[in-house]
Amino acid sequence: MIYLASKSTIRLRILKDAGVEVQTIASHFDEEEAQQELAKLSPRALSLALATGKAQHVTTASPSALVIGADQTLEHDGETLHKPRSLPEAEAQLLRLRGDVHQLYSSVACCQDGEILWSFTDSAELQMRDFSLAFMRHYLQGEGDNVLQTVGCYRLEGLGTQLFKHIAGDYFTMLGLPLMRLLDFLRSHGELQT
Amino acid sequence: MIYLASKSTIRLRILKDAGVEVQTIASHFDEEEAQQELAKLSPRALSLALATGKAQHVTTASPSALVIGADQTLEHDGETLHKPRSLPEAEAQLLRLRGDVHQLYSSVACCQDGEILWSFTDSAELQMRDFSLAFMRHYLQGEGDNVLQTVGCYRLEGLGTQLFKHIAGDYFTMLGLPLMRLLDFLRSHGELQT
Repeated sequence: MIYLASKSTIRLRILKDAGVEVQTIASHFDEEEAQQELAKLSPRALSLALATGKAQHVTTASPSALVIGADQTLEHDGETLHKPRSLPEAEAQLLRLRGDVHQLYSSVACCQDGEILWSFTDSAELQMRDFSLAFMRHYLQGEGDNVLQTVGCYRLEGLGTQLFKHIAGDYFTMLGLPLMRLLDFLRSHGELQT
Repeated sequence: MIYLASKSTIRLRILKDAGVEVQTIASHFDEEEAQQELAKLSPRALSLALATGKAQHVTTASPSALVIGADQTLEHDGETLHKPRSLPEAEAQLLRLRGDVHQLYSSVACCQDGEILWSFTDSAELQMRDFSLAFMRHYLQGEGDNVLQTVGCYRLEGLGTQLFKHIAGDYFTMLGLPLMRLLDFLRSHGELQT
């Protein structure tokens, strides 16, 4: 059995769609507690630290089970942006990103018995278009609290697509899970048929 | 109302997910009939000719309605590959593509009153891995007749992902609809909020 230490519904869907049997599991990793130490990291290093932390802090019924941890961070203008805590915060964040390029970093880490077997980080570059305030209101109304679940206030698999002018990189990385490289690892580790 | 002159369920899903209200409609364009003329075209030109043909040969209740046509072709080793007609044919095609790079060309055309307003073609490059025969059987068993619906015998949004080593390009283009550029056109044509 493979466990996925992530609450993200899109990560679960990506894996299930690709034919990987996984079960979600809660991680005891406390992001808040580790915050002070993590605050010094670059967005790229932060996504890897969080993915690794989530995968390592899991107690599974079978200790030898493989655990996948994943995380995504967003960099804009040299700063790491975090999930908005409210719709007004989401609005402010969207206005900040509007018309600009930002980077998404997606990391995945695979652990067994709390030991890291493999990890990988990928990035993608996205440029938001100069959308109108009317579109932003329409967008926030349509997406509602869903925007609070993501670092960039958008789900690219939904209406979020309409926020963008240009997207470049691996689509799964943009969604939050570098799938192709993870499949490579799962095959090499005997979890998937070669 | 926007009409989609395509039987592809994934194209409909891509548009609906992105918040574009469309209705599928049958096209009178006869691919078989046009085959002789189309056979001379390159895979890139063929995808555009088919997308355009589908969009132009539609009768809508309201003549001023916008019609989207789309098509995808596959090029391997200088040749255009077509949808397999049977599972043995799919098997042969997968063995041909195995370990190799191939190109997908996706075209989209928008028509009104049978007149082409806009069209666009994009390509993506995909490399299949050197999968085992056991995996191929497992794959064909899992996907069944679904593989007969696509030019490459795979749905990248499903188990098909496991056939690949590397994919490069726009994911929506790989799925069969260059979405970002289509959204651009729909906005410029007043069909979507800017």
